[in-house]
Amino acid sequence: MVEVKAASDEPTRLAEIIHPLFADQARGWSSRLDNGSSTRLLAGVPAQDDCAVFGLLGDQELVLGSDYVRGPKFQLYELGHLNEYDIGYYLAIANFSDIAAMGAHPIALLSVIRYPKHMPDDVFSQVMEGVRDACASVGAPNVGGDIGTAERLILSASAMGVVEPGRSLRRNGARPGDLLYITGPTGIAAAAQLYFSKMASTGATRRDGMEEELIGAWKRPKALVRHGRCLSRSGVVTSCQDSSDGLKAGIQTIATLSGVGFLVEEDTLPIADVVAEVAKLGGADPVAMVLGDSVDFQLVFTVAAEAQSRLEEELAAGGLSFHRIGVATEERAVMLRRLDGMLQDLPGVEWRHSA
Amino acid sequence: MVEVKAASDEPTRLAEIIHPLFADQARGWSSRLDNGSSTRLLAGVPAQDDCAVFGLLGDQELVLGSDYVRGPKFQLYELGHLNEYDIGYYLAIANFSDIAAMGAHPIALLSVIRYPKHMPDDVFSQVMEGVRDACASVGAPNVGGDIGTAERLILSASAMGVVEPGRSLRRNGARPGDLLYITGPTGIAAAAQLYFSKMASTGATRRDGMEEELIGAWKRPKALVRHGRCLSRSGVVTSCQDSSDGLKAGIQTIATLSGVGFLVEEDTLPIADVVAEVAKLGGADPVAMVLGDSVDFQLVFTVAAEAQSRLEEELAAGGLSFHRIGVATEERAVMLRRLDGMLQDLPGVEWRHSA
Repeated sequence: MVEVKAASDEPTRLAEIIHPLFADQARGWSSRLDNGSSTRLLAGVPAQDDCAVFGLLGDQELVLGSDYVRGPKFQLYELGHLNEYDIGYYLAIANFSDIAAMGAHPIALLSVIRYPKHMPDDVFSQVMEGVRDACASVGAPNVGGDIGTAERLILSASAMGVVEPGRSLRRNGARPGDLLYITGPTGIAAAAQLYFSKMASTGATRRDGMEEELIGAWKRPKALVRHGRCLSRSGVVTSCQDSSDGLKAGIQTIATLSGVGFLVEEDTLPIADVVAEVAKLGGADPVAMVLGDSVDFQLVFTVAAEAQSRLEEELAAGGLSFHRIGVATEERAVMLRRLDGMLQDLPGVEWRHSA
Repeated sequence: MVEVKAASDEPTRLAEIIHPLFADQARGWSSRLDNGSSTRLLAGVPAQDDCAVFGLLGDQELVLGSDYVRGPKFQLYELGHLNEYDIGYYLAIANFSDIAAMGAHPIALLSVIRYPKHMPDDVFSQVMEGVRDACASVGAPNVGGDIGTAERLILSASAMGVVEPGRSLRRNGARPGDLLYITGPTGIAAAAQLYFSKMASTGATRRDGMEEELIGAWKRPKALVRHGRCLSRSGVVTSCQDSSDGLKAGIQTIATLSGVGFLVEEDTLPIADVVAEVAKLGGADPVAMVLGDSVDFQLVFTVAAEAQSRLEEELAAGGLSFHRIGVATEERAVMLRRLDGMLQDLPGVEWRHSA
């Protein structure tokens, strides 16, 4: 027996799924920056208008970016390890991570969700519930976007944030002598992909909780808004970006745009146990996995050396993790000092260069 | 002989196609609202940062929306009447039209362009050139977005605008007695689709220039920013939205959200010659084509009756077109008075309800 599930048309979905899901996020939403400037949502999803409307009082910087995510083309979705809720959640976090990396306070998501005509309402709802809950995790409302049909599920979004004037974090301000940091371990997302596509079915016994930890990087990624806000407020962070193209790509981008090089110390790179475990299972270099094109949404940033202890204290006071992993150099090369003292180029897969 | 054309990877396209195309739009871009508040682009595409950054000085309302467009799935693209430049252009205008309908001054586009891996650089460039030129037509920069591969060309974008506090145009303010307007003739986009899919190949002689006029609605749509700004500044426009879901849908949405009805007068509806011609060729009711689900980016709006002459003078002074087509009623029905005096429901295809 085939169960027939409703696939409502677009106006019906707007009225019966989207509006109820996002009405609470819109109701009375407002936020205030440290300089007293404020942002208030005047018209969100329930207003059913051409656009969302925010009232902005006082000077501020507005940051905005867009990320399309492969979503249903994620290998881990195709393998059945992620569901529609997960990829909706992921879409929103991938976008908010860029806001976090600018040091901004997220104020809005616009989500573009196109779906095959016969996708049932309950599956569509799951995508939107993932979007809603990820928005809730950073305290910003989903204020609109676009829904409608397409040949397959397509997920794209834009996120906006505000930050005190002069306090947005850029990629181009690192100077020689600045210290290089990462907020937490990277490589977990890549390890998850490797593990579930190549190793999970081999039947060997794994540590309890290992698979959950790996898949968690994809199911419930975090946008490090509190980190970003702390780095922005400190006034001493000279560059920042998220590690969504991989840690190596992040370091190289800051190097290129700032006109510096970096010396990264292997012995200070945080390596999650699961990454070490998967690398061992696969006979791979865990450092290459940590530096390569894994999508982990950590923040990589630089700080003037004289401000190091103050910043570390501020992060610690907020309960926020950090790892000092290197130093910016006059010499423009980006190098890794291995445990044995040898210098080499950073290992790991480059960012998105076509094969 | 097969000509091999380069299909560069993403970092190369960013550096060699995107940045050169959009550097000029970013350089020194700023704008000022009537209340003295201003917006300045601090970091656009050339900054290569996680997000674009605007400096906002003074109180303002921020409006933002997203539109995905079918683009390569447009029937007229599939038939060879639109090219990649055209659908890039269309993407940006579809998004800016929503900003225009809010009465806002557009400040930014974020464009999400995903493409098949083997799409040559020159074809990708054509899409981006269309985006660039459409942005130039409204004086706002394309400040970022996302590029990368997908199974096919996917086009989505978000647009942002700013407007003086309290001056954004909404859909919910029409009151009984308000007069209903449209900025210009609708139905041309639908007539184009009908003509090129069903009639163009029949070989009959057409009026010179007719085909160009029809396809022009798709190739070079206009976002009516000057209209929207004039309506916002007037302070007497009680509701507004664009006609991108069709004129009938626009009127019905304003009716529903404002809690009024409308009486539309057939003898005042602007009917473009090409629409009348295509309707005649196809034996169709031109009024149904004008009201149906054609995508024309006109603005439909209401004005308090006592302010009618002042608003009409202001529009005329700006050289801006308008047509008074009806009146808002206490009775919540939306009706059309035909030329013979008979009242009927609005004819024309409903908006996007699934077949």
